[in-house]
Amino acid sequence: MRDRRSIVLVSGGVDSAVTAAIAVREGRCAFLHVNYGQRTERKELQCFHAIGDFYRIEERLVADIGYLSEIGGSALTDERIDVPEGDLSRQDIPVTYVPFRNAHLLSIAVSWAEVIGAGYIYIGAVEEDSSGYPDCREGFYSAFERAIDAGTKPSTRIRIVTPLIHMRKPEIIKRGSELGAPFHLTWSCYKDEQVACGECDSCLLRLRGFQEAGLRDPIPYRKRAI
Amino acid sequence: MRDRRSIVLVSGGVDSAVTAAIAVREGRCAFLHVNYGQRTERKELQCFHAIGDFYRIEERLVADIGYLSEIGGSALTDERIDVPEGDLSRQDIPVTYVPFRNAHLLSIAVSWAEVIGAGYIYIGAVEEDSSGYPDCREGFYSAFERAIDAGTKPSTRIRIVTPLIHMRKPEIIKRGSELGAPFHLTWSCYKDEQVACGECDSCLLRLRGFQEAGLRDPIPYRKRAI
Repeated sequence: MRDRRSIVLVSGGVDSAVTAAIAVREGRCAFLHVNYGQRTERKELQCFHAIGDFYRIEERLVADIGYLSEIGGSALTDERIDVPEGDLSRQDIPVTYVPFRNAHLLSIAVSWAEVIGAGYIYIGAVEEDSSGYPDCREGFYSAFERAIDAGTKPSTRIRIVTPLIHMRKPEIIKRGSELGAPFHLTWSCYKDEQVACGECDSCLLRLRGFQEAGLRDPIPYRKRAI
Repeated sequence: MRDRRSIVLVSGGVDSAVTAAIAVREGRCAFLHVNYGQRTERKELQCFHAIGDFYRIEERLVADIGYLSEIGGSALTDERIDVPEGDLSRQDIPVTYVPFRNAHLLSIAVSWAEVIGAGYIYIGAVEEDSSGYPDCREGFYSAFERAIDAGTKPSTRIRIVTPLIHMRKPEIIKRGSELGAPFHLTWSCYKDEQVACGECDSCLLRLRGFQEAGLRDPIPYRKRAI
């Protein structure tokens, strides 16, 4: 398995930390982080490097796609749209959806993979939880994989690995805990403050996940709503 | 037709100028240009704006994806790889192939289209000529379109329009000439010099195209190999 070469998309959150924990057991990894002008860019980049150091990853790439915040259309990149607080019962597509964001992440990973000869791209997308992002669905990844096959060299074969796609948050956290994923080095909050707010959708999802997994979230919060 | 809203990828070359000429007749257009750290970035950006001015396009977006030159792997973005001179008889994938580049271009166009409500993305990709780039094949665009459908909001419907995909260079030039495409404002040369070299693959393809179309290329050349 050690000649299996992979690129892991590491945002710096819980899901990508668990994905990294899975990927490093399955082969040699390069870590990719993408800044897209999100409010928490600086925090996430720190977590990316901390997780990279934790797993002693030599090959790292940080790509900037700041044009996504110029395009706007999302509460994560457009300051005119407020990040909503605490309502996990919604069924529609949330305002934190960044249009087609994961296609950009995958495209960068594919270009890099084709150059360094990596055959696998790991991404910690989750279809099952309540986020409702269309670019987190399994059907998107299988469609994108066909686009990769059609749009790269005939000798290139790159598979997208989504180990968490059908897991719920508590399962992901349990799995990460078993693998020793560095949760203490992660950031999930949608706000860019010293300490996680504990009240935004992302904090609630994380806190509820730890609670349901019967584990204690190791990071500090301004307020633990759960 | 005037309520048809489109995004046109305009690199600043002949093919994108003809694509723009076609698109502006079919609806309201926004122009998108992408800098990817290619050697001729500055020249291409000038041409993009000149063509945008020519067609009085108000909505323009210039996106920087400089990380592609960091990833390398192409003579167009990596200074350690020479741009080859004049051999249009090759059948393999040329060193000027930028790995999976057009997926990045399309992803940016899709994100922007989803935010501004454009239903069409025009790209001047050409499968038929001798370039041999895998991300210029029709199959890639149909596969990518399925990825768009899977990865955007259910209410979003975006089609990729490739009006030149099965045309050869002389046909493209004839069609552009009929439509009054501003060839005098375009740049094709792979080198970043004051005047087009007239000897690289891209200059040869262009010059041969004008010759076979029975038209005179209006831009100056350092040396006209054809």
